[in-house]
Amino acid sequence: MKERIAQILSWYESDNPGTRANLVRILNHGRLGGTGRLVILPVDQGFEHGPARSFAPNPAGYNPLYHFQLALEAGCSAYAAPLGFLEAGAARYAGEIPLILKANNHDVLHDEKDPLSAVTATVNQALRLGCAAIGFTIYPGSSQSRIMYEQLRALAEAGKDAGLAVVVWSYPRGSDLSKEGETAIDVVAYAAQIAAQLGAHIIKVKLPSAHVELAEAKKVYEKQQIPVGTLAERVRHVVQSAFDGRRIVIFSGGAKADDERVFDEVRAIRDGGGFGSIIGRNSFQRPKYEALKFLDTVIRIYCGEMK
Amino acid sequence: MKERIAQILSWYESDNPGTRANLVRILNHGRLGGTGRLVILPVDQGFEHGPARSFAPNPAGYNPLYHFQLALEAGCSAYAAPLGFLEAGAARYAGEIPLILKANNHDVLHDEKDPLSAVTATVNQALRLGCAAIGFTIYPGSSQSRIMYEQLRALAEAGKDAGLAVVVWSYPRGSDLSKEGETAIDVVAYAAQIAAQLGAHIIKVKLPSAHVELAEAKKVYEKQQIPVGTLAERVRHVVQSAFDGRRIVIFSGGAKADDERVFDEVRAIRDGGGFGSIIGRNSFQRPKYEALKFLDTVIRIYCGEMK
Amino acid sequence: MKERIAQILSWYESDNPGTRANLVRILNHGRLGGTGRLVILPVDQGFEHGPARSFAPNPAGYNPLYHFQLALEAGCSAYAAPLGFLEAGAARYAGEIPLILKANNHDVLHDEKDPLSAVTATVNQALRLGCAAIGFTIYPGSSQSRIMYEQLRALAEAGKDAGLAVVVWSYPRGSDLSKEGETAIDVVAYAAQIAAQLGAHIIKVKLPSAHVELAEAKKVYEKQQIPVGTLAERVRHVVQSAFDGRRIVIFSGGAKADDERVFDEVRAIRDGGGFGSIIGRNSFQRPKYEALKFLDTVIRIYCGEMK
Amino acid sequence: MKERIAQILSWYESDNPGTRANLVRILNHGRLGGTGRLVILPVDQGFEHGPARSFAPNPAGYNPLYHFQLALEAGCSAYAAPLGFLEAGAARYAGEIPLILKANNHDVLHDEKDPLSAVTATVNQALRLGCAAIGFTIYPGSSQSRIMYEQLRALAEAGKDAGLAVVVWSYPRGSDLSKEGETAIDVVAYAAQIAAQLGAHIIKVKLPSAHVELAEAKKVYEKQQIPVGTLAERVRHVVQSAFDGRRIVIFSGGAKADDERVFDEVRAIRDGGGFGSIIGRNSFQRPKYEALKFLDTVIRIYCGEMK
Amino acid sequence: MKERIAQILSWYESDNPGTRANLVRILNHGRLGGTGRLVILPVDQGFEHGPARSFAPNPAGYNPLYHFQLALEAGCSAYAAPLGFLEAGAARYAGEIPLILKANNHDVLHDEKDPLSAVTATVNQALRLGCAAIGFTIYPGSSQSRIMYEQLRALAEAGKDAGLAVVVWSYPRGSDLSKEGETAIDVVAYAAQIAAQLGAHIIKVKLPSAHVELAEAKKVYEKQQIPVGTLAERVRHVVQSAFDGRRIVIFSGGAKADDERVFDEVRAIRDGGGFGSIIGRNSFQRPKYEALKFLDTVIRIYCGEMK
Repeated sequence: MKERIAQILSWYESDNPGTRANLVRILNHGRLGGTGRLVILPVDQGFEHGPARSFAPNPAGYNPLYHFQLALEAGCSAYAAPLGFLEAGAARYAGEIPLILKANNHDVLHDEKDPLSAVTATVNQALRLGCAAIGFTIYPGSSQSRIMYEQLRALAEAGKDAGLAVVVWSYPRGSDLSKEGETAIDVVAYAAQIAAQLGAHIIKVKLPSAHVELAEAKKVYEKQQIPVGTLAERVRHVVQSAFDGRRIVIFSGGAKADDERVFDEVRAIRDGGGFGSIIGRNSFQRPKYEALKFLDTVIRIYCGEMK
Repeated sequence: MKERIAQILSWYESDNPGTRANLVRILNHGRLGGTGRLVILPVDQGFEHGPARSFAPNPAGYNPLYHFQLALEAGCSAYAAPLGFLEAGAARYAGEIPLILKANNHDVLHDEKDPLSAVTATVNQALRLGCAAIGFTIYPGSSQSRIMYEQLRALAEAGKDAGLAVVVWSYPRGSDLSKEGETAIDVVAYAAQIAAQLGAHIIKVKLPSAHVELAEAKKVYEKQQIPVGTLAERVRHVVQSAFDGRRIVIFSGGAKADDERVFDEVRAIRDGGGFGSIIGRNSFQRPKYEALKFLDTVIRIYCGEMK
Repeated sequence: MKERIAQILSWYESDNPGTRANLVRILNHGRLGGTGRLVILPVDQGFEHGPARSFAPNPAGYNPLYHFQLALEAGCSAYAAPLGFLEAGAARYAGEIPLILKANNHDVLHDEKDPLSAVTATVNQALRLGCAAIGFTIYPGSSQSRIMYEQLRALAEAGKDAGLAVVVWSYPRGSDLSKEGETAIDVVAYAAQIAAQLGAHIIKVKLPSAHVELAEAKKVYEKQQIPVGTLAERVRHVVQSAFDGRRIVIFSGGAKADDERVFDEVRAIRDGGGFGSIIGRNSFQRPKYEALKFLDTVIRIYCGEMK
Repeated sequence: MKERIAQILSWYESDNPGTRANLVRILNHGRLGGTGRLVILPVDQGFEHGPARSFAPNPAGYNPLYHFQLALEAGCSAYAAPLGFLEAGAARYAGEIPLILKANNHDVLHDEKDPLSAVTATVNQALRLGCAAIGFTIYPGSSQSRIMYEQLRALAEAGKDAGLAVVVWSYPRGSDLSKEGETAIDVVAYAAQIAAQLGAHIIKVKLPSAHVELAEAKKVYEKQQIPVGTLAERVRHVVQSAFDGRRIVIFSGGAKADDERVFDEVRAIRDGGGFGSIIGRNSFQRPKYEALKFLDTVIRIYCGEMK
Repeated sequence: MKERIAQILSWYESDNPGTRANLVRILNHGRLGGTGRLVILPVDQGFEHGPARSFAPNPAGYNPLYHFQLALEAGCSAYAAPLGFLEAGAARYAGEIPLILKANNHDVLHDEKDPLSAVTATVNQALRLGCAAIGFTIYPGSSQSRIMYEQLRALAEAGKDAGLAVVVWSYPRGSDLSKEGETAIDVVAYAAQIAAQLGAHIIKVKLPSAHVELAEAKKVYEKQQIPVGTLAERVRHVVQSAFDGRRIVIFSGGAKADDERVFDEVRAIRDGGGFGSIIGRNSFQRPKYEALKFLDTVIRIYCGEMK
């Protein structure tokens, strides 16, 4: 085992060998295998935003097999999707790439300020489909967060008992938060902490802004002069907030954006000690050859082949 | 096995042999057996709308045995009904036609804008009655949709474990949708996607209009110039939205209508790559000989004997 | 087995031998045994209306043993009561009369427009007490009807698995219905259909009036000229609405009333093809010798000894 | 076995030997053993009203062992308390006095018009602690009564299966009842009936006033001229309302009061055919020697040594 | 076994040997081992208040290993933390210090007047991590307290069956209480009583003020002249309210404060018969050498080495 992987694994020594093996599978897979960095392809937008908004820009993506293939060819670390998308390809691509079963989902046909996703899959289904991990979204700040934390507790406990890894999407959202507050540095760091305390192995958060949302937190950030001026500094603070870097924290790519901006963000994640990216729309909403080129750049930034 | 059936079956290779066998049973049954097309007779209107509204136009339909007989004589692919109707004939017609146990139901003695059906049957009951599949209705767009998705998850998981197929009625409805929006092309396509992501093997939706309901979707339909002008184009888009045609999508016949209009709709479903129809009131609300003639035409359009 | 009983039993051929045996026990018990008609004594008014309102008119009825004795001496088909009343006499009268455990109850110390009864007994308790059936009340039209349907589903499934019969009190009630609507012919027929679809073996409804409550139903009753002018016609329509007469439908006696009126109602039930009566307050709220005489007349009307 | 005990036991012949044995244990224990009368010491006021309000008047009562000792020395029939109080002494006093585990509790730090107690103990805990019975409070008249009835059903079924007796505190309370109505004769009699129908072996109610609360009941009380003028008559009517005296009904002592008034109430309970008293605050809120003297008088009234 | 420990253990003789062994482990660990006094280090503030507010003052605390080490070096009796923090160090520090798994948590990204924490861990997880106890917070006074009591009942029963000890944080809070009322002497004493009645082995409350909140309680405090003038008297009254001192009651240190004030409070706890302190922020929000010195003083006050 590569030294960096052994080091990461040492943070999870309370986990059983099955879970540790699945973490290693993800960390050793793809072009970033062994580096301690990850690039994950997530495709749950068909459920979350609707099919045309997600796949019309690159209609090949309507086909669930496309995303397995894309993740494989790009050398991603893992592929994450809801039940139906995984069921459609898990047999054909069995064993070729670590799979993360996204176990809860939300759609926008009915939306609300304090959302609560439906639990749409179980640990048994993840095992049946040969997954390495289950994924779960929590919305800290929602008036329904308590329910999500408890759903995650049950799913994570069952998953760990079955030797799976647990990946948590921790997205602050809810009626008590301003729109700006959802990506505020204090709120994103808090969301990472909550996911870690709930037992997540891998934590996915959004890239934070320099805004500080909570009054009580603001006093501390000012008094302790916590550096949050640059994106790399903010990444570093979020990683620190997840058990001083002893949990794997990755950052989401967000809506489709200018490539150079994404690459700069990847550089900040790398320089701030982040563990990698989870990039959906920027990957699958363009023709495959463009997506491969785009992901190649991301991967080369992470592994140090590119600045 | 016919080539087309083998092809369809290849999309479900994550399922166990029991479930695959039941899918084949439905696909091979009746006059459309082996064509990859389906015509299903559903009779849940007694529960959903009341007995007189459903059966007084053809009082033979008050008798549960009538519908088994009608489905058989017409050469339908399967017969779907609630618990009571199936219990009343399952022993007598055992093995003669694939049965779909409609596992949730709603009545109009109490109605609401954001409906939630009662779960009225279980997988064990479906097994006891010799069914090939369970059926379940979800109302995407309802403020209660989360509950229905979770009920479906539990029922579908138990059903698949027991070797049953899962048929989902996906009917957008709820306080956030306009009346027109319930059949809008973007909404129907979204409903098909949700059902597929939730693990449905067969998805039933309403025929969509050219209306686009959601503002964010409208931008994409316009920008990508998705063709939705003709009914066949819209059927094609809905089928594409269900995993690029890798899930069986069938369309409902709706309220009793002019026969020629229904036949035109069937032609559009056929030409747009739809997999068939599920036709209740247009079948059982007329004398049996008329119903047989009507269904004969539908079947001949699907199998290509008629234009 | 008498031919009529064999015919009735043929409608329940999906049920297991245990359940069929218990149906036969009820159909063969008492003075109407073998006729296909039933008179059941129900005593849940102590819970539903309070003890003095129920038993002060004939204080012998405070004693739970009284009702077992009354049902036996009168030659009733079965005796139905809540848990406590059955526990108090089930050992002493073991095997002497079929018992129906009324598994949910409601009291008027707290009342509401959309009622939901408490589930007060289980299938295991029915088995322990040697019951032939479980009884359950649903209130179609209540905003809580969904919950009751699901409770009934669970109880009925467990009961059928254990070889019990299922008796459903289907009483429309709730904020969407007018007072008159609770006994409207369309609503009562709908309530019978719902109970049948939910898997009831025996359905108890109130005698319907000629009023039609629901606008959509009214159109059909008028267009199809469904005869509902006489009570016998209305009984016939309700029986037809319960699977064209393939489910046992009995009618409740209601509050204590003029005897001749009750006898006329019994004649209408008989002539309309109803299967019998379930008569509580008219039976136990008078001295026993009067009750026996009253029930004797009812029974003689049903078995044809009296006009 | 004493004749009276055998007679009482005959009312519970549907129960298993384990439960019957525990009823006998309670009926045969203490100075009233064998008389068919009971005096039970209940101490749940620490939870229900707070520690200082309960125990400061006689600080020895802060100690949980004190109440075991008091019940023993006074020759009470049983001692009833919440989980914590029983855990603190059950090992030391094992087998010395029948214990009743009070399985739900409510505190006044948060109070409400329609209360719902927390379920604070289980049948397994009662068994572990060597209890003879479980106790449970219901509030008929509360908008939450349905939930309590269902909790009681579950607990009582499990308790009876495990051979425990079931003691129900039936206290009318809720937004539909006037303050006066909580102890109205019709309401208390109704509460006793409900507890009996729910399967209680021993029913505890408050002493009723002559007030009649419910309009429908008032008509009956007047028409049937039910005698409720004296306390003994009201006790008799409540006992009649609990299955014509075939269930054990005991009466609570209420807040600390003038001794002579309590003794007069005990005489009325005795003369009206009540089965005994459950006396908490009047017992433990005075020095032990005074409490023993007070309980001695109560017991002598019940066993006939005193008028 | 030291005499004092044997005496304390005698209060818990209803518990199984496993639970008693874990209580002894906590009572015998660290520098106060054998004295009957406890100092526990709790670190759940990362979840409850956010990471920067908790750890920025002493950034070493971001690292979960730091707190294990601090508790060990300081000679604390036990270390309490949420799931994630324990998972991160339980393997490395296995067997070195008694662990308390804090099984419910709350965050301030969404706050409310009547809070309900999420249940974030289970007894099985506590066993897997080698914990000696589970910890649980209840908020008496919250409109949601009933739910918390029932969650605690379930967790405590499972925990005791598995041989764990149960530590309850009992913090009055809710819309019926004034801010001052949350630490009122009557309310804190009531909260200790509730925790004891719910079966807690160790009870943690806040230090009470002399304010009396509840009107009914005020009458009793005045009439009985309960001494609550000094902090030591108030500690004594709270300990008395927890079964006359037969339950272990410890007091929380609160927000970071002037050291001398904390030491005075510790003296009052000691002199009032309190069993110790649970001190989080005052311990880990300063450099380790300062924290060790601070805790050394606290411990020396408790064991009598210091006044």
